[in-house]
Amino acid sequence: MKIVIIGGGAGGLTTASNIRKYDENAEITVITRDEHIAYSPCAIPYVLCGEVDCFEDIIMHKPEDYLEKDIKVITRAEVLEVSSIANKIKYSLIDKKDEPAEELSYDFLVIATGGTPFIPPVEGSELEGVFKIRTIKDGLKIREYAEKSSKAVVVGAGLIGLEIAYGLLNMGLDVTIIEMIPQVVPRSLDPDMASLVQKYVSKKGINVILGKSMDKIVGENHVKGIVLEDKIIEADMVIMATGVRPETKLAKMAGCNIGRWAIQVNEEMQTSIPNIYAVGDCVEVYDAITGHNTQSPLGTTAVRQGKIAAKNIAGIKAEFKPVLNSMVSKIGDLEFGAVGLTNAVALNNGIDVITGKSRALTKARYYPGAKRIDVKMICNLKGVIIGCQIIAEERVAERIDTMSLVIAKGMTCSELANMEFSYAPPVSMVIDPIILAAEDACDKLSNLNKNKEDKISF
Amino acid sequence: MKIVIIGGGAGGLTTASNIRKYDENAEITVITRDEHIAYSPCAIPYVLCGEVDCFEDIIMHKPEDYLEKDIKVITRAEVLEVSSIANKIKYSLIDKKDEPAEELSYDFLVIATGGTPFIPPVEGSELEGVFKIRTIKDGLKIREYAEKSSKAVVVGAGLIGLEIAYGLLNMGLDVTIIEMIPQVVPRSLDPDMASLVQKYVSKKGINVILGKSMDKIVGENHVKGIVLEDKIIEADMVIMATGVRPETKLAKMAGCNIGRWAIQVNEEMQTSIPNIYAVGDCVEVYDAITGHNTQSPLGTTAVRQGKIAAKNIAGIKAEFKPVLNSMVSKIGDLEFGAVGLTNAVALNNGIDVITGKSRALTKARYYPGAKRIDVKMICNLKGVIIGCQIIAEERVAERIDTMSLVIAKGMTCSELANMEFSYAPPVSMVIDPIILAAEDACDKLSNLNKNKEDKISF
Repeated sequence: MKIVIIGGGAGGLTTASNIRKYDENAEITVITRDEHIAYSPCAIPYVLCGEVDCFEDIIMHKPEDYLEKDIKVITRAEVLEVSSIANKIKYSLIDKKDEPAEELSYDFLVIATGGTPFIPPVEGSELEGVFKIRTIKDGLKIREYAEKSSKAVVVGAGLIGLEIAYGLLNMGLDVTIIEMIPQVVPRSLDPDMASLVQKYVSKKGINVILGKSMDKIVGENHVKGIVLEDKIIEADMVIMATGVRPETKLAKMAGCNIGRWAIQVNEEMQTSIPNIYAVGDCVEVYDAITGHNTQSPLGTTAVRQGKIAAKNIAGIKAEFKPVLNSMVSKIGDLEFGAVGLTNAVALNNGIDVITGKSRALTKARYYPGAKRIDVKMICNLKGVIIGCQIIAEERVAERIDTMSLVIAKGMTCSELANMEFSYAPPVSMVIDPIILAAEDACDKLSNLNKNKEDKISF
Repeated sequence: MKIVIIGGGAGGLTTASNIRKYDENAEITVITRDEHIAYSPCAIPYVLCGEVDCFEDIIMHKPEDYLEKDIKVITRAEVLEVSSIANKIKYSLIDKKDEPAEELSYDFLVIATGGTPFIPPVEGSELEGVFKIRTIKDGLKIREYAEKSSKAVVVGAGLIGLEIAYGLLNMGLDVTIIEMIPQVVPRSLDPDMASLVQKYVSKKGINVILGKSMDKIVGENHVKGIVLEDKIIEADMVIMATGVRPETKLAKMAGCNIGRWAIQVNEEMQTSIPNIYAVGDCVEVYDAITGHNTQSPLGTTAVRQGKIAAKNIAGIKAEFKPVLNSMVSKIGDLEFGAVGLTNAVALNNGIDVITGKSRALTKARYYPGAKRIDVKMICNLKGVIIGCQIIAEERVAERIDTMSLVIAKGMTCSELANMEFSYAPPVSMVIDPIILAAEDACDKLSNLNKNKEDKISF
């Protein structure tokens, strides 16, 4: 069985390794445009900010490591053509463009082409000093340019934008981050929770400008600044953290159906063409709560999809379930995470909600080093928890995972309020902040019901 | 409505505060033998080891704080008599023993008498320098004595024993801990996981002796050492951390039914006498997995029971669910926790199991400061997860909480292996250690089933 996988990121390589796990004879080839494979793009900002020493460190594996598993990896190769009729791809090596294209035939093709940064069509975006951020190469270029710069503007205050801004700040630059929407992390956090993150990064020294759009980038040859509502902000460099678009070109060429957001796949990660599978940022998935198709551009999603695709290709039935899009990030000492729907997204989907909140501590009140923790829980009017956001200087990620389970299992705030949580003074409060937020939600729900009854009785 | 609550710990005071939440007119009196109320006995070792400054710090509330909620607290008072026919108790103040006993009548009585340390009948246990550990007073005495001592023996290597041993070590003493059973933390950890904790405390400098019983304590007037299988271990002080027995004397006096372990209560925390409730370490509960009655001497259990008792007393139906006994502790930098059944307890209950294990990291592999984490997951032969133990130098407690939910919801290892977990390089691995352990359990289960099939086909 010949398997060709296009893409050397989390999705592609997980598929490759897992196919090998089930089938020791399969001929597996991974082909990627990138020079590096098996690195975590989410780690790039942490190299910039100096927490991780160098870009080499974040590369988990080299092509040679895969050869040991008898998986062939071709790097710096551009796939030129996919023929789903002939079951062949054509590619050329980027360093040998003059040589004739090579061919690879397949029994199964896996498209794991990921995403490409979206750069909005703005005047000046072609100037020297304007950067996108996706690959290690991008990271290296940014670092090199930042070393001789003193002022940077980051466009877009999503996760990557904030992380890069903090990285550049730590490199000693004067950093401004601008965001069209009037809050940071608009995809995952509600404004009330986002404001806590914003305050933190502002306090660290990042200049945050919200609710305003950049008009243009100015400069001659190289960047000198940006124009924002007729005001000029000086800058030596501009990082466009304006999102990533699924890379669907090859899938389209193969004739795979493309949905609203990205490549359509069924629960087995199979595209509309039976022997072509797709995984990772280039596919669209279903939201576990709304049931609508959505994107899930997360490394964890790519890994989970790669496992499912590999099983199905190897003949073992497996299904990828709708997502909750649980996320976490850490900027400086601040961890923040979210799972499920925000208040805003719930309302946009016509779901009426109540929210439970708690502000508590990460250890017993008297224990030295206890940090403040904020929890927001979103429930529908039956009390079923459909979203959660948590912010603290420690112990957020695992609480988000707990909440993922709570949401996946359809638990109500009152069921959660009665759950058992572990306790020891150095690591938790006797009543967990999650329980406190669930109790708050229960109280609000019973007040709501009481008010309804009062209204009915009048 | 008059409510008398005997006991000023987590169970008693939670009941008091929560009754006030639902009933602003109730006359609530809390009566306790102790001088202090509202402190966390689990924090005492952390004061000894110097992580928390002083015993004052771990007292969360004073009697005056409760007066603000119109809850009367009587400290240093011994309840002499409970009459469930007259609905009255008699008590005397410890400092005024000569005065006639006072009386309090009640509509509802709540017994939250906790537990008392169990001291095995061993020769020499009456010597000066032998201590039990339960109250702040005990903690103060131990600290004072330790300040003029150089060698200590701690008897019992459960949680409290280990924590106290580490506390004394940090005070500069030469510490030996001895445990009859051939492992540390026998109630919560299996031997393989316990050995990791043992290695850690040994490395810190505690002398650990397992599988041996103390014959006697020797000395004249004050402790000089202990005898252990004909060998003398010198010591200036001996701490008996040999467990706690539920304090059921008053409940017996009232005529409440006592079960195998402690006071029997129904799901509403009501004893066999309708207007007497009981909560905390003095009651017995049901195990969520085996269905058998068991003990749950945990602050979190006491708090959850107090809330349930308060609701029912206030006329709001609420039920306390069977327990999973989730626990966590931190000794030095090592966190360890467990929930559900150990392998050993499962086998004792006739449940055949397979175990999934993982040894991984708490952050991305390349991220500085990543710590080793060990996870052990116990599943029945249908793959349903019934227990979990986790050890690492960070981020254990919340993972235990995640596993509590997993077990409470009856999830299988294969369901868990497909769950969504959040990821960012500074806070997690792209595949969570919990997922890795679940996958290991899945593999073992499918091997087991394959072997079965092989056997059948022969």
